[in-house]
Amino acid sequence: MTLLMNPTEELTTLGAALRRALDGEFADTRAAARSAFPVANLHRDPTQDLATARAWVLDRLIELGEAGVLAAGVPTSASDPGDPLAAVVSFEMLAYGDLSTTIKSGVQLGLFGGAVVNLGTAWHHDTYLGDITSLKLLGCYAMTEIGHGSDVFGLETTITYIPETDEFEVHCQTEEATKAYIGNAASHGTMAVVFGQLQVRGRSHGVHAILVPIRDETGADLPGVVTGDQGGKGGLLGVDNGTIRFQRVRVPRRMLLNRYGGVDDNGRYQSAIDNPNRRFFTMLGTLVRGRICVSAGAGIAARRGLSIATRYALNRRQFAAAGHPDGVVLADYLIHQRRLLPLIARSYALGFAQNEVTATLVRAQGSGQASEEEQRQLETRAAGIKAITTRFANDALQECREACGGAGYLAENQIVGLRADIDIFATFEGDNTVLLQQVAKALLADYAHIWGELNTAGMVQAAARVFGDTVLERTSASLLVDRLITTAKRQPEQTTLDDRGWQALMFTERERHSLESLARRARKAGKSFDAVNHLGDHLLFVAKAHLERITLEAFIAGIVACEDPDTKVVLQRLCSLYALSSISADRAWFGEHGKISAGRSKAIGARINALCAQLRPDSLAVVEGLGIPAPWLGAALLDD
Amino acid sequence: MTLLMNPTEELTTLGAALRRALDGEFADTRAAARSAFPVANLHRDPTQDLATARAWVLDRLIELGEAGVLAAGVPTSASDPGDPLAAVVSFEMLAYGDLSTTIKSGVQLGLFGGAVVNLGTAWHHDTYLGDITSLKLLGCYAMTEIGHGSDVFGLETTITYIPETDEFEVHCQTEEATKAYIGNAASHGTMAVVFGQLQVRGRSHGVHAILVPIRDETGADLPGVVTGDQGGKGGLLGVDNGTIRFQRVRVPRRMLLNRYGGVDDNGRYQSAIDNPNRRFFTMLGTLVRGRICVSAGAGIAARRGLSIATRYALNRRQFAAAGHPDGVVLADYLIHQRRLLPLIARSYALGFAQNEVTATLVRAQGSGQASEEEQRQLETRAAGIKAITTRFANDALQECREACGGAGYLAENQIVGLRADIDIFATFEGDNTVLLQQVAKALLADYAHIWGELNTAGMVQAAARVFGDTVLERTSASLLVDRLITTAKRQPEQTTLDDRGWQALMFTERERHSLESLARRARKAGKSFDAVNHLGDHLLFVAKAHLERITLEAFIAGIVACEDPDTKVVLQRLCSLYALSSISADRAWFGEHGKISAGRSKAIGARINALCAQLRPDSLAVVEGLGIPAPWLGAALLDD
Repeated sequence: MTLLMNPTEELTTLGAALRRALDGEFADTRAAARSAFPVANLHRDPTQDLATARAWVLDRLIELGEAGVLAAGVPTSASDPGDPLAAVVSFEMLAYGDLSTTIKSGVQLGLFGGAVVNLGTAWHHDTYLGDITSLKLLGCYAMTEIGHGSDVFGLETTITYIPETDEFEVHCQTEEATKAYIGNAASHGTMAVVFGQLQVRGRSHGVHAILVPIRDETGADLPGVVTGDQGGKGGLLGVDNGTIRFQRVRVPRRMLLNRYGGVDDNGRYQSAIDNPNRRFFTMLGTLVRGRICVSAGAGIAARRGLSIATRYALNRRQFAAAGHPDGVVLADYLIHQRRLLPLIARSYALGFAQNEVTATLVRAQGSGQASEEEQRQLETRAAGIKAITTRFANDALQECREACGGAGYLAENQIVGLRADIDIFATFEGDNTVLLQQVAKALLADYAHIWGELNTAGMVQAAARVFGDTVLERTSASLLVDRLITTAKRQPEQTTLDDRGWQALMFTERERHSLESLARRARKAGKSFDAVNHLGDHLLFVAKAHLERITLEAFIAGIVACEDPDTKVVLQRLCSLYALSSISADRAWFGEHGKISAGRSKAIGARINALCAQLRPDSLAVVEGLGIPAPWLGAALLDD
Repeated sequence: MTLLMNPTEELTTLGAALRRALDGEFADTRAAARSAFPVANLHRDPTQDLATARAWVLDRLIELGEAGVLAAGVPTSASDPGDPLAAVVSFEMLAYGDLSTTIKSGVQLGLFGGAVVNLGTAWHHDTYLGDITSLKLLGCYAMTEIGHGSDVFGLETTITYIPETDEFEVHCQTEEATKAYIGNAASHGTMAVVFGQLQVRGRSHGVHAILVPIRDETGADLPGVVTGDQGGKGGLLGVDNGTIRFQRVRVPRRMLLNRYGGVDDNGRYQSAIDNPNRRFFTMLGTLVRGRICVSAGAGIAARRGLSIATRYALNRRQFAAAGHPDGVVLADYLIHQRRLLPLIARSYALGFAQNEVTATLVRAQGSGQASEEEQRQLETRAAGIKAITTRFANDALQECREACGGAGYLAENQIVGLRADIDIFATFEGDNTVLLQQVAKALLADYAHIWGELNTAGMVQAAARVFGDTVLERTSASLLVDRLITTAKRQPEQTTLDDRGWQALMFTERERHSLESLARRARKAGKSFDAVNHLGDHLLFVAKAHLERITLEAFIAGIVACEDPDTKVVLQRLCSLYALSSISADRAWFGEHGKISAGRSKAIGARINALCAQLRPDSLAVVEGLGIPAPWLGAALLDD
């Protein structure tokens, strides 16, 4: 049956090999998911109005649920361990089609279901997970408030224990405490996981989560609940985002998701984690999968746009020229190559990095045995890759739109819809600017942890020398990278621009140098808001430098794992194009800090042009490698 | 009556003064237009479906027409000289509200009406202009074809003279020749100005334009006309874009817009311009106003977004900090300042540049006496400012969306709608990438014209020395700028980063040096496609360098014209912020070419941060200066 739904796609040999390489250790899982995915209603009619879009997406979710691909990997009871890889790959597959469906699925299974799984205990699992995965119980993840978006710690909603009746009272004292931007809140949700400050006998225990029914079977708000519809948005029209205000709503004690803290039979607060901060971050940490999924979805949206724009560029001709009487193929213009090929190269790079963070997640959640250190590192990686991949997806899709000209603006060609939907990925599941600062602060904390006491200039220099082997943790490709860097270090300006060791050296130097200077400035700044505030742009630079370095190492590991020499050649070119584009974007910094001479810096642009020319004949294979089957692109401009 | 519609806006003294300064020589005209503009239906409900949106926009156009503000400045007969300033300011005012209305007005009056005015003769004017300005006759500007977007020269539609009946036959031989993306084509247009290759007695005379009725009174396609609806788009839902295919449609000879070429009573082709290329560019050149209007509209859209995001940032708090127990105001975060203030500074810069190009247009079209050289320069300026302002508007609105977080994504807060509408501004009225190449080629032609024969190295150096006074034409502020540059040149590295002379020197050097090296490479490249193709990114760099230099000079002229010292201080800071942001973006180039030392280059970021801090207390006044009355912003997030 599944083969009938997904007729074999015709791929070039190189395209198939690149796809396998980019799918990496999950190649078999992803290939199986592709061949099993129900593609009949992959895309939504972009001219639907709000009400139609919401109804269509709900129907599509139910259809996917019945096909068995929606809740793959999500546990259905306390005894079901779940399968994090299946859950992530299922989310990836959803991103091949309508993104409202993808996000509504994420709200239901990743956020609402995920909170029940990760923050609840056996009673919650056995009572609710079956209905959640079967979509009988549609729910909300009510964390964000009107007054508090990024600052979850400062949520104002209260969850107060009432000893007299052994209940909790959920309350939004102010308008600002109203939950906002909540998926499934405007119409379909009947229950919500509500985050609020837990109060027990006059004492606050910080943010906890509780299950609260919000609508009856007729869809009417339950007493004390006031939902609101946030209506039209920039995209994702099929997701019914809304507000929820709770006015002294009572629920039984057992509704508190009490894995990390709750009230016992004697009405006393109990938690295995004494420190409220640590408890809070442990609770949030269990939700790391959401960010990894958002990043994966954004990466796939970008690949869809790049596939459409590249395939269009390979067919579209414009302006006759000497030797090209019928017009030059767009893909032959250097400027057009410079628009799309570096983005494709970056798409590969981020794909390899995504594979690594997914593998880490699978190890951590599959065994459930991640150490606190590993868990914290996973969170930093997830925050970071979410920030850079969603930024990339926004930028890439806009470039794709413009590269397709007027055709790119027609809804039937998919790109504007993708662009509109992906926009908010930069904000939800953590605002990118806030996430990047978290990444930088985590790096700073590592740095301070190791070198905290050694604050004399001499010691900082000592730190610098051993930095590469201590502060930066090492990935699987790290031995190779270290060797390459060591060789390149001897005479960096004598290497070619394609020398992987030199590129890796530049990436490492950018991170090391900027982190060290940040650490020095941070030490001086102390705790004053004004002084710390002035580090803002430096924090962002460090975070990006770190993420770029990790991404390059993931790319190198991906190349090492590839065994076919022809495929390897193309991957090497893509890797150089990615690396040189990243270096080029910061080449002012490299010049200012004496890492690259003026002459060498000037040569980078020409080398990027040359790499584009080398990759041009393989353009089709390279986008095939991105993994989106051509018949799934659904863009009218590719019909012929 | 108008005062009742537009209650007096409360402005700070500084805000009012900045607005006057930025409105420049058109301050009175614009203030009058603001106070007269009918604001009752300024914004469209963003949740409207396609059909509702189109109907609403048509109604709104009619309403604006009845209020007398729509067709201001557009001539209504052959004897009416028109008023280019009134026309441009009217378009600007429309951009304060729903952009579909703005663009549909532009299609009707600027493109369709503009073609009749500029390419037609007295009979066309007297017969049609009255009905066009009164909206009785809604029309299309049918230039772009499926197969030819940017390459207007290569249009395939034919306009063939039929001597037997003294008619023209309009025909699209191929599917590719079908007109596409045409506003008013999907439903409302009943006539079209059709561009095609004029054929007379077997000889082709290049692209001409002809009036062709396309629909009858019932809205049905006329015989031989097949219109199509291009449906949903990324934005501008209220504009009914569609396709038109002509199948041997006959119209009387007089329907040809024959100002620059036509068929006489003897059935012979006649034109005052012998060279077909020159004729073609003369015809296109008369349509320069469209690009200036598109640029103006994009600039205003960006100002609306920046006004919303800045006012939000001044009220919104997030994250408590030492000394800020209720949370820090977003506008106080350095990172947030870095997001918005440089964009506001650039908005001022482009506004001053827009004023200059508008003044040039008014001089050229008001008197109708522009020399061919002046006309050509106006076209280059219009192409350039259209490209950089529409790019800016896209980038700025996206930054505004993200800076407002989840609230920015709600349609009720206007930014996503603006962003969606402005997207295609980068493509229509000339693809930005193509326009920038035209700008660079025009500069190259000027350069070659003056220095063409002097191709030895020594002569090129000689050229370099006198470059500033010959090739680059001089604006009104040029004497001042020259003096500032001369002073700064003596010891450029000893000036402060705020030194206007040093900034101007850097802008000039960037243009001069990159144009000279382009000229050398272009001479070597000759005519071969491959060689010219490789200059692509260099062309874009030169064009942008040129446009930045012009923009800086316009800003300086705007400061010179401002007489209030307090206002001047703020303008000086904004100018430095603009200039240093522009230099910073290219500081790799400046370093590579020895124009800025590493140490000085590193200091630029800190100086930008300091300028942001200096401007922070005036944030409100600075956005008031952008000219959008607060009550017109229509963003729910600003309601309190």
